[in-house]
Amino acid sequence: MSLAALQNSPGVAATTPGETAGFVFNHTMLRVKDATASLDFYTRVLGFRLIDLRHFPEAEFSLYFLALLPAGTQIPEGDDARRVWMAGIPGVLELTHNHGTENQDGPVYHNGNADPRGFGHICVSVPDIQAACKRFDELQVPYQKRLEDGRMKHLAFIKDPDGYWVEIISNTPIA
Amino acid sequence: MSLAALQNSPGVAATTPGETAGFVFNHTMLRVKDATASLDFYTRVLGFRLIDLRHFPEAEFSLYFLALLPAGTQIPEGDDARRVWMAGIPGVLELTHNHGTENQDGPVYHNGNADPRGFGHICVSVPDIQAACKRFDELQVPYQKRLEDGRMKHLAFIKDPDGYWVEIISNTPIA
Repeated sequence: MSLAALQNSPGVAATTPGETAGFVFNHTMLRVKDATASLDFYTRVLGFRLIDLRHFPEAEFSLYFLALLPAGTQIPEGDDARRVWMAGIPGVLELTHNHGTENQDGPVYHNGNADPRGFGHICVSVPDIQAACKRFDELQVPYQKRLEDGRMKHLAFIKDPDGYWVEIISNTPIA
Repeated sequence: MSLAALQNSPGVAATTPGETAGFVFNHTMLRVKDATASLDFYTRVLGFRLIDLRHFPEAEFSLYFLALLPAGTQIPEGDDARRVWMAGIPGVLELTHNHGTENQDGPVYHNGNADPRGFGHICVSVPDIQAACKRFDELQVPYQKRLEDGRMKHLAFIKDPDGYWVEIISNTPIA
């Protein structure tokens, strides 16, 4: 469908409001049972960087902010500068850890894909999806759907430590 | 906390794996009851652009891909080029519409913030949060938390047509 036709879809505003200039889809927040397990998964398996964290000991929760940054990205050192910078970029993942959940037995959070449904998944795109999935195999990452499963052979779904689905797609043309 | 100290948090990988070069946190997927209502909200209220849609009539669902793009962004016209481009950018919002849900009475989806909890919210950052919230008032957007509510006076939560929470923060230094 052409770009012009897309803009004629029911519900789509005729023009982008000028008042929304500078708006950024900054982040998505997911609650996690065990911050250490989630930080390991998102940094070691997927390559995210931890760019901020905020502990709220009285309210007994912590927030972790991660991003997948292009090589060579300069992250501001100072906290204030880093927080303003972080608020202005898209693609941040916020993980909320309510203290103590890591000691509960079994899963703590709902991934949205069984009733009651809602949130579905996050998605990480990769330059070489075959190589990426081979590496996930080597790292023994659990899958919801392997590349070769089902009819959609060009995408996979892996699962993070809480069972949230992470779709894996290609960001380069597939031969 | 310094950037170096962040990298020493429990669970964080000592180095960013080279194999994750080119990985992009591309999108977040939410199911929506009524695609027209959601497209109206995300394009007219928040300034997103609809950059792709895919109808699956046999499986009775449609996917809508939206992004908040910096002014002057050139969106590729051709479908193939646009899809590769879209897979390579962060900050895409994917809305899944299962056909017919728009005719059901009442809310269809779960926003993740009551039991069973999991997903929390998405967040849009804005250059002038006072002006943005004043405009949301004028547009009669429902709030979960107004700027002036509670202790956190520098952020708000509005609600999209399905009741998903959209956090609003500033992406400029607050005086």
